[in-house]
Formats: sequence, structure tokens, C-alpha cells
Amino acid sequence: MVMTNGYEQQENEKILNILNLTELEAEAKKIIPTGGFGYISSGSEDEWTLKANRTAFTHRQIVPKSLSDMEDPQTNTNVFGLDLKTPIFMAPTAAQGLAHAKGEVDTAKGVAKAGGLMAQSTYSSTSIADTAAGGEGAPQFFQLYMSKDWDFNKSLLDEAKQAGMKAIILTVDATVGGYREADIINQFQFPIPMANLIKFSEGDGEGKGISEIYAAAAQKIGPADVKRIIDYSDLPVIVKGIESPEDAAYAIGAGAAGVYVSNHGGRQLNGGPASFDVLESVAKAVNGQVPVLFDSGVRRGSDVFKAIALGADLVGIGRPAIYGLALGGADGVFSVFEHLNNELKIIMQLAGTKTVDDIKKTELLNIHY
Amino acid sequence: MVMTNGYEQQENEKILNILNLTELEAEAKKIIPTGGFGYISSGSEDEWTLKANRTAFTHRQIVPKSLSDMEDPQTNTNVFGLDLKTPIFMAPTAAQGLAHAKGEVDTAKGVAKAGGLMAQSTYSSTSIADTAAGGEGAPQFFQLYMSKDWDFNKSLLDEAKQAGMKAIILTVDATVGGYREADIINQFQFPIPMANLIKFSEGDGEGKGISEIYAAAAQKIGPADVKRIIDYSDLPVIVKGIESPEDAAYAIGAGAAGVYVSNHGGRQLNGGPASFDVLESVAKAVNGQVPVLFDSGVRRGSDVFKAIALGADLVGIGRPAIYGLALGGADGVFSVFEHLNNELKIIMQLAGTKTVDDIKKTELLNIHY
Amino acid sequence: MVMTNGYEQQENEKILNILNLTELEAEAKKIIPTGGFGYISSGSEDEWTLKANRTAFTHRQIVPKSLSDMEDPQTNTNVFGLDLKTPIFMAPTAAQGLAHAKGEVDTAKGVAKAGGLMAQSTYSSTSIADTAAGGEGAPQFFQLYMSKDWDFNKSLLDEAKQAGMKAIILTVDATVGGYREADIINQFQFPIPMANLIKFSEGDGEGKGISEIYAAAAQKIGPADVKRIIDYSDLPVIVKGIESPEDAAYAIGAGAAGVYVSNHGGRQLNGGPASFDVLESVAKAVNGQVPVLFDSGVRRGSDVFKAIALGADLVGIGRPAIYGLALGGADGVFSVFEHLNNELKIIMQLAGTKTVDDIKKTELLNIHY
Amino acid sequence: MVMTNGYEQQENEKILNILNLTELEAEAKKIIPTGGFGYISSGSEDEWTLKANRTAFTHRQIVPKSLSDMEDPQTNTNVFGLDLKTPIFMAPTAAQGLAHAKGEVDTAKGVAKAGGLMAQSTYSSTSIADTAAGGEGAPQFFQLYMSKDWDFNKSLLDEAKQAGMKAIILTVDATVGGYREADIINQFQFPIPMANLIKFSEGDGEGKGISEIYAAAAQKIGPADVKRIIDYSDLPVIVKGIESPEDAAYAIGAGAAGVYVSNHGGRQLNGGPASFDVLESVAKAVNGQVPVLFDSGVRRGSDVFKAIALGADLVGIGRPAIYGLALGGADGVFSVFEHLNNELKIIMQLAGTKTVDDIKKTELLNIHY
Repeated sequence: MVMTNGYEQQENEKILNILNLTELEAEAKKIIPTGGFGYISSGSEDEWTLKANRTAFTHRQIVPKSLSDMEDPQTNTNVFGLDLKTPIFMAPTAAQGLAHAKGEVDTAKGVAKAGGLMAQSTYSSTSIADTAAGGEGAPQFFQLYMSKDWDFNKSLLDEAKQAGMKAIILTVDATVGGYREADIINQFQFPIPMANLIKFSEGDGEGKGISEIYAAAAQKIGPADVKRIIDYSDLPVIVKGIESPEDAAYAIGAGAAGVYVSNHGGRQLNGGPASFDVLESVAKAVNGQVPVLFDSGVRRGSDVFKAIALGADLVGIGRPAIYGLALGGADGVFSVFEHLNNELKIIMQLAGTKTVDDIKKTELLNIHY
Repeated sequence: MVMTNGYEQQENEKILNILNLTELEAEAKKIIPTGGFGYISSGSEDEWTLKANRTAFTHRQIVPKSLSDMEDPQTNTNVFGLDLKTPIFMAPTAAQGLAHAKGEVDTAKGVAKAGGLMAQSTYSSTSIADTAAGGEGAPQFFQLYMSKDWDFNKSLLDEAKQAGMKAIILTVDATVGGYREADIINQFQFPIPMANLIKFSEGDGEGKGISEIYAAAAQKIGPADVKRIIDYSDLPVIVKGIESPEDAAYAIGAGAAGVYVSNHGGRQLNGGPASFDVLESVAKAVNGQVPVLFDSGVRRGSDVFKAIALGADLVGIGRPAIYGLALGGADGVFSVFEHLNNELKIIMQLAGTKTVDDIKKTELLNIHY
Repeated sequence: MVMTNGYEQQENEKILNILNLTELEAEAKKIIPTGGFGYISSGSEDEWTLKANRTAFTHRQIVPKSLSDMEDPQTNTNVFGLDLKTPIFMAPTAAQGLAHAKGEVDTAKGVAKAGGLMAQSTYSSTSIADTAAGGEGAPQFFQLYMSKDWDFNKSLLDEAKQAGMKAIILTVDATVGGYREADIINQFQFPIPMANLIKFSEGDGEGKGISEIYAAAAQKIGPADVKRIIDYSDLPVIVKGIESPEDAAYAIGAGAAGVYVSNHGGRQLNGGPASFDVLESVAKAVNGQVPVLFDSGVRRGSDVFKAIALGADLVGIGRPAIYGLALGGADGVFSVFEHLNNELKIIMQLAGTKTVDDIKKTELLNIHY
Repeated sequence: MVMTNGYEQQENEKILNILNLTELEAEAKKIIPTGGFGYISSGSEDEWTLKANRTAFTHRQIVPKSLSDMEDPQTNTNVFGLDLKTPIFMAPTAAQGLAHAKGEVDTAKGVAKAGGLMAQSTYSSTSIADTAAGGEGAPQFFQLYMSKDWDFNKSLLDEAKQAGMKAIILTVDATVGGYREADIINQFQFPIPMANLIKFSEGDGEGKGISEIYAAAAQKIGPADVKRIIDYSDLPVIVKGIESPEDAAYAIGAGAAGVYVSNHGGRQLNGGPASFDVLESVAKAVNGQVPVLFDSGVRRGSDVFKAIALGADLVGIGRPAIYGLALGGADGVFSVFEHLNNELKIIMQLAGTKTVDDIKKTELLNIHY
């Protein structure tokens, strides 16, 4: 444990003995300071959408398939030309220094060890280059919160490209911060500097409230911005925060290389649907034109399976990996990925699906419980 | 704090630090005497409809719209020719002296400060003129409980007109009081005189049970009464307590200038639907002929958004504003309106809606949770 | 209080100050001995159907009607040629001596005072003639559990006729007792003699287990039995325990004068539907050929209203009246009827229905909550 | 009580006084060691499917039929040419030595006494021959977990045939173990040897973790395996773990003599539907070609009735019988069967169904609660 600006950062580095991802939250709560934990764990308003993100997975059911004549299911997949050992990826998640002194560097290391894809956040505690190095050559994406200041955007895109990022994830569902009550109760200010902000501006994120951070971000984002980022970066651009067929069409029309279905883990528009409940309609609209990424609420192998069955090519986790980071550093993140991937393999076997492609061909039931 | 007829009236005057409107109730309960709090907070019978008023908002969901190329959403609107800073208005609410010594005068001041519309109740603690003055020129409506005594009705309408009320709200869903158990348990009698009753008759509401108050009100109300009030007042008349397309048609047929969808905050017909659940069908029947007002259960910016999306032009709050009044007087009421309007702005931004008209064009999902 | 065969019988005689019928159960539990209370209050198996009987009323909602130009709603009705002050009637309920020393005599007195219809049970603690006398000329029906012994049936029908019963209610849903766990836990035996059993046979019900009592009843009941009872009694025969259009058709085909929709208060077939949820389909099948009676789960004026709106002509209560009997004797029963009828009047006014016939013409909503 | 390898085995032999099958679990928990109880009682992951197995029965409702002119319902049935006193059978359940020192021998004895059908598990604590002898001539089936080692499979099939097993149940839904958290928390290892494993190999199951046991089982199972087992055994082969019309078609196409709808008591694919919720669609697909067996979640006579009404010919129980075994040995198992069959008879009478065939012709309601 190390004190940074009066905030206790964890320094654990160990493989975790994980029972399930749900229980990690209670463990992590014991060691992450209140303000940091509140920022990571909470959603907006009364967290109805956050909770719906979990219960929504029960809206669809996997039919056990028992005579499929298969064994030894394989979770490897190829998306965006990348060979991955698992369809589970690390969703872009801000300020991981709140959970661990090594922050995103350790996360990248753990995800790489698990053979997954890592997505860095604009609001990372560590720099693009450092996080890239943490991944030791494993594929990474860079997530961009578009700033009002295009010089800043360009600087980030330049650095991302230089650091070997394989794609840009442009987040469009956070043009203003959701109303997160935990942060208000905790009077939460970011205690840990954000490397990308330090680098560019005098401001470094340290001691800034969440609203100040968001204030620097652009509110006004449209298809033209997507196009502009594609043109400048010359990298595949995935648009994150799509919850409707209409927005998917806008994104693809602007040249997006991927559509990322997410409601930001229930941290933005409370009163909106569970992310899982809109996935199928978005994926049907995308209709294979580009890959579909998905996150928000994933905690079980069966959740990953269901999301893929409804059209996701990659399935992201955020909070559980951050809890793994707090509890075990790079190996903690690795343990989280391994555990979830193992749960997925059991489900694949019992559902008679040998490959990720087999999952995609699976019909789910929709019995109302 | 001041003692009036043995009842403790609050005298707070301050801006409130509001986390959310839901939590105000517990704060207000600490300072409003039991009988008064019971009268304000409770619903009828076992409060099934009162509770349904809240849960009903989860029946419809707002789709985040992320590529709408907009920023800086505006909540101003024009209804009945009135320029308002917010579509949130103060629903007519009786006996506000139960919450604060200044009663409706302070409420009017706070609502005016927030740029909203104020509706006075027939059963106000303060007089029409005093409350009007409290609003310092901001628009106000006067709500009428039609009496069996037409001289009384005329007297109130005369006074309302003289005080510059912009419209009359005729409440028709309270031809008998709902069966409110809290008032029976508390043996509640109004301790604070009602100014409009004092003025006209020997009776002043003080020391009267709720059933006596209601007994003076007309039970038999039909389209002819609506017409008679329109003819006499020469003001726009809005009919409050409409929950069906049929009643909307009666009201409009009688010349009503507006239809007000409400179930009286769950205080009248328990076993009826949530007000939000009938809004869409009524608004479709109204079909733009007159403005639609809505209340019952609104606590969140997302609730306001959803009500507008389903057809409301104005969205009223009652209890939360009264709690704000108790806790902070005029500035307390102002704080409640500001807070709710700020929540609304966040939702508007995340839903990609720049204006109130944009909200009206928004389709909600109806996933069953 | 009096001790009878070691069982404490209440002797209260007073008007009750009733908040609502639901809360009566807790009050009654304090004074009725455990075995008796268990027999009265419980349902079969895990009481799923018993609970569903209550929640089912929320499946349909009453639309407030506010411009109906009516006042002073009237609950009187005429069914089977009988003028009744209320559509609420006393459902046949066994062994009321468990609740009060005066048993059915007091119940009949209270129901008569309220202007309602009384139905006696075969398993009454008091005799047909005594109970009839208790009602002082008010209309009563006699409920028959058909015995294997036709002499017994004839004897009861003779006595019922002689005592002036206006109709026979033939219960057909209890050809075997439901599996009621409370009675087993309490090792319940009837401590109070059953007058109709004493009179006819050596056995008197005292000290008999429930299964022994039921063993004497006929299991095999069909349309021919209905016809036989009609022919012998020359009275209108209402068939009780109908839950399907098919059984309604059988009953009417056999000459039944009424169809009684009931699931025996959740005491018989657990795992069956709530009685309220089948009422509409049965009433539609009956289609006005004969009156429809309904019970099971009624506790609120809104429940009575909803049942009538879906096709019931008379709406029965059982347990609440028995609790009123225990707490206040004849006046307790009267208080229960008065309270429920008053709740009904409030609902009628708010729903814009002047008469019971107006209720019948009312459409309910069916929003799923 | 006897200590075996440090594990306390019960030795109770007595008729049980059963209130209901649900309450047996709490009783059994008091006397079965933690690890054994966790193995028996738990499901996989967060046990959503396990819980859904119970709640699903409320999705369909039995209509009381009151004028059916029947009495004395009969539960006897003939399936696979076997005369059985009850359609309730003993589902194959592993390692019954965890519950009782006599294990499957006592279970077979109790089931035989009740006139039911017994299914032995491959992972029985006692040998095929011993368990067969326990049944004293009553019909038994042998359940096969297909091993990767065909010599083992053949040896088991030979022994099953020699012991007079009437059919083989081939379990296909456990090609990998479900993720059962209780076993992980308890670090559960089988303390009691498994007779069929001892006999064939050096390994005997004692001290083996669940994953090792499953590792020896074949993962890859297809229609060809079904056919191979049919061909070798020359016995009727029932395929267990079918949850879809597709798998039913595969099984029947391969020559299966029966289709067994089950989700393994919620112990395998969590996130799959309740077994009861897929029964009807599978039974309709089977369409009488072969008998349908069903288990998972059955605890009440009404559950048995509903399963038969939706197409099951035989309805299995597992855990409740094991709890009966722990509490009362052979007579405990008998008591469980008797109790459940008695509940079934009550339901049959109240539903107007004289025979098991009458149940099959019964339409259930599907009201959503």
C-alpha cells in the first residue's frame, strides 16, 4: 500500500482464488478507499439501469444441448483481424490508479496474460505508452473522450497511434456526466493524476471534481466528428455507447469500423434500458457490416454466452477487472479473465457449442420470469 | 418555528443541498408534525396506486441517443402563451401552512424564482391575492374545488381573475375524498385556517376534519359545470383528474382549454392505474387539441422526460415541493425545482434532445422488467 | 369469554372501529385460540393460491371517471328477487363457534343489520332454525355439503326450507379437503359441536378431525346430483366452486339458478388460479343466464367493485366477517359489512358509477404491474 | 450413525411424519455433514435456474373441476410395460451414501414399498446388484454416465442387464460438471467409495474431487453413442437431459425408447430455462412416439399433476427422497413417496381426474403472476 496525495493505493500482486465475479465487489470494497470505491462501483440516480443491467440477462435463457457430439470448447476468436484467446475484453475504464498503484499498466499486463484485448481510457492514470508497454505486445485499443480542444484530440490520437493501438474507441454516451449520487455524497475528487491530461495541459485531473473533467469534454458529437477522427487517425474507429439501431446506422454511415453497445455500466442515462435488452435489435441492424462490441453488467460466463448469441463479437467487463486489479494487480486481472473464461467454457460445453461461431448461431429462449 | 393553534409551523428560509427528491421525504418527516406529514405524504387505502405511480415510470425506457450533435439543452417552453423556464410546474396542493408558516406565499416565490408555473389550491392556507403577490408577477393558475354553493365558486373565480390568475384548473377527481388511512389513524383535523374558506364563510377550515371540508364540495360534476365555469370566468379552464380518453373528450367537448392527467397523487381512487400508465392513451386522444398537464409520482428528471415524451406539455410536482417548502421556505421550493430541472437537463443531453419539443418527438421503449 | 370443551369462545358484542379489513386478522389472532385461528385463516399447501387471491385484484384497474355528473352512489341491488342494501354477502363459512360463542346466530344478526344476504354453512355451529331466527327475517341461503347419506341431505333440505331459506348453495369444490398444513401442525380437531350433524346422527363434529368430517361428504358429485337437489328442494340451487366455463355450463345445464365462482378462499386446490382471475371468463360464459356469485380474497371496496365489473352479481366475504364476529359479535359483523360497503361507495363515486348496474357496465384496465 | 472415512453416515430407519417435502431440506441439513449436504442441495453458479425450477410451476395453473362425477382417484400407471402404483419415480441421484449408510439399497427398498420406479446412478455408493436386490423385484432402471472407456461402459451395461434393470437412462447433460460453488466453498471430495467405480478400476471415487470424477466421463456424446448403447445393451435406452425439441428428435432418431426432460436439478447449465418451462414444447415434439420422463424442482402433488398435464408420463424426484433417506432410511424414502402421492391424489380429486390418463387430458391455464 502506498499513499498518493492522501489516497491509499493498493500494491497487491497475486493470483486470486475467485469463487465468482459478483463476490469480488465486497472484497474490493474492504480495501479501496470510500471515494474511489464509490466512483468505481456506483451508477447514476437511483441505479435502476445499473440493476437492470444484471437482471436483464435472465430475460433470455440458454437451452442446454446435449447431443451435440462435441468436446473441448474453444474460446479463441478473431475480430478486427486480431487473434484473441477469449471474446472477453477489458472495457475502457477510467482512473485505475484508484484501485492500484500500478493502474492500467498492471491491467494491461493481466489482460495480455489472459490473451484478451485491452482498451485504455482517455482518463487513464498511466500514459498511453506506459500502458501499451504493460501489455507486452498484446493488442490494445485506445478509448477517446473527444475534447472541445482538437489539439488535445490530435495529440492523443498521435500518441495512441505511436504506441501501437489497433483501434480507437470513441465514446459518445458521456457528453455530460450521469448524475452519480455516490460521488456527491463522498464529495469525490480524483486524487490520482491522469497521465493523458497531465501531458497535454496544465490540468492533470488531480483534485478535480468529475464535473470539471467532463466539462472539458465535447458535448456536441455527431457523425461528422466520427468521420473526422477516422480521417485523422487512419485507424479503425469504434463508436461506443450505441443503444439503438438509429445510432448504429449513423455510426456505420460515418465510417465506423465497429459498433459498441453499452450504457456505460449504468453510469450515464438512468431510466434507459438494460444494455443487454437492446443488444439484439442493434446487432440485427448492424447485420454483420462491422463487429459489435458489448458491455454493461457482465459477471458470468453465461452472460458472455448470451451476449454473443444475441450478436456481440466481443464482450467487455469493467468493474470486476478493476476489483481484480485492486486485490491482485496484474495477476488479479488475469485471474478475473481466467475465471470468467472458464465459466464460459463450461456453458459452451453444456450448450453444445464448440466455438465462438457456434455460440453466434445459438437461439436463446425468452421466457418471462 | 411558530406555534399556530397548537401546530408547529416551520420557518426555514434557505437554499437546500439536495441529493434527490426522493430523500426529501425522510428529511421533511423529521420536522413536520405527524398529522400534517400524514396528510401530505399518504395515499388512499393500502396505497397500491400511490406506489404504482412510482414504479410505472420503469414501464417505459429512454434510449440514450449519442450521435445527435447537440449540446446545451434548453428546458424553456411556451404553453398557454406563457413563457416558462421549465416544463415542471407546481401542482395545486392544499394547506401548505402545514409545512411552513408562510405557506403558499413562499411556494409561489420559490416557483417564480425557478421560472416555473405556480398553481394555487382552493384549500390554500394563504389567500389568492397574497399567494399571487408572492409570485411577483410570475404566471399562476388557480385550482378550483367546485362548491355546492355557486356564490362561493363565483367569489373565488372573481378573486382569481382579479389576482391575475392565467387559468383555472377545475379538479374533478375528488368528488369525495379517497379513503386515507393515515388521516384516520392520526385523527387529523386541519389546524391551520384556509384563507379562501375564511373569507367567504363563517367556516375557516381550522379544526375541520377532511370529510367536512370535502362535504362542502360538489360531488356531482359534469360537462355542463365545466362550461358554466368557462362562461363565468372567461379564463382558460383546465380539467384536472382525467385518466381516460372518454373524460378527455368530455372536457374538450365542454370547451376545456387543457386536460390534466392526474390521479391526485394516489390519494383518491386506490385500485386505479398509475397516472403515468394512462398518460399516453389520453394524450393520443387529445391529439394536440389542447395542452396536456400531468402529475402523480414525479421525482426524477427522467420521469419528467418520460411524461413529456408520452404527451405531457407540463409536468407537475406536489409533495417534493412541499417538503422543500418545509425545509427551506421559498428557497427550498426553488432548490427542488432547480434540482429536478438539472436532472432533466442531464437526461435531455444524454437522450440527444436539445429542446422540450425534441423530447416530445422521442419514442420510449416498453420493455417489461 | 366462555370455555366450551376446553376451547375459549369469545363473547364480545360491540361496534368495531375498523381501519380496514386486512388489519382485522392480526386483531382476531390475539383472541381466537391457535387451532381455531389456524383453521379459519389458513389455506392449503404453501398457500400460493390463497396469496394469489389477494394479488390478483391488482391485475385489473379501475379508471377514475370524473365527469359523470353523479353523486350519492347507491349499493342496493336486487338478485334472486331479493332486495339487498349491498351486493356484499356473507359467504358460507363453517364452524363459527370457533370465533364466538353465539356463532352463526350473531353473524346472521349482523349481516341482517347491514342489509346483506347471509349464507349458512352445513357445518354451522348453530342450527339452521336458530341461525334463521338470528337474521330476523332477512334473506338467508343454506349451503349444502352433499353427504353420501341422502337421508341426511333430505333432512337438511327439509329443515332449510322450513326455516325459510331462499336458496340452496351446493358446494362442489370440496369433494376432498385441501391439504391444509396449519391444521396438521395444530393437530386441529373441531372442539365445538356442529348443530346440523348433532341433529341427524350420533356424530356431532366435536372432537372430529377435519378429514373425518369430509369423509362423510360425498366425493362423487355431478350434474345429476345438482338436478336431484333441485328436484327435491324445489328451491333455487346455486352451484359453488365453479372456476371454469365448462363447469358453469354443466351447472346451468342441470338447472342451477346461480353460478358461484370461488376457490374456497384458497383452502382447496392450491396451484389453481386466483378466483378473481377466472371470474371474467366464467361470467362471460354464463352470459346473464343466471346470477353470478363470487368470493375468495375480497378485502377492499375496490375488490368488490372490480368483481362486479367483471360479472359478479353478489360478492362474498368470509374470514373478515368471522374476525369481526370474534371481535364484536353481531355488531362486529355489522361493522365489517358497513366498513366494506363504505369503501365501495367511495370507489363508486370516484369511478362515476351511481348504481350497481353502472358498475357492471364499467370496463377495467388490465395493465400488468 | 457410523463414521466412514471420517464422514458421519446416518443410520435412521423409520417412517417419517412429513408435513411437506419442502421442509425436509432443513431437517436433513441438521444431520447430513456440510460437504455432503452442499453437494446434494446446491445448484450451479448463483442457482438462478435451480430457483426457477421451483417458481416455474406457478406459471401454469390447475383449474378445479367440480362436477366431474368421480371419486377415489387412482395414481397407478403403466409405462414401458411396467405396472406402477404411482407416476412418481426415483430420479437417478449420485452418492447416496452421503445421506445414509445403506445408501441406494435403502432407497430401492423404500421406492419399492411405495410401488414406484427406482433409477440407479452410475455414481451410486452401492453396487448395481446390491441396489437391485434392495428393490426386491420392483422395477429399476440403470442410469449411465458414459465413460471415455468403452470397456467400462460395457461392464456397467452387462452388470445392469444381469441385475434385471428394465432400461438404461443415458445422461447427456453432464458432459462437464456445472459450476457448483458450494462444492468449491466446502472443498468437497467424495468421502464414500462409489461401488461401480471400485469394481472396474483402481479408482473408487473416495477422496476424489467432483472434477476428477467428471473427467473420466465422456464429453463428446452424440446420436451415434445413443445408438451404440442401444445396440450393445439390447435394453430400452432413455436419453436424460433433453430440453429442446431438437434434442428430442436426435434421441428418437437414434432409437431412444424414452425422452427424459431435466436440467439436472439446476446443477448443470445455470442461465438455462426451468425444466418445467420447456416440458410442454418437448412433449409436443415427441408427440407420443415414446414416453416422456421429467424431473427438476418437483416438491408438491400439484407439481406432479402439472408435469403430467404438460406431457410427462413419469415424474421424478431426487433431493426430497435423499433427505427422506437421511432422516428415515428405506421407510423415510417410502414416507416421501407416500406423502407426495397423497398430495397428488387430493389434487386429482379436486381437479376432477380419476386416472393418470385423465390428468394427461387436462388443460392448464397460463396466467402470468
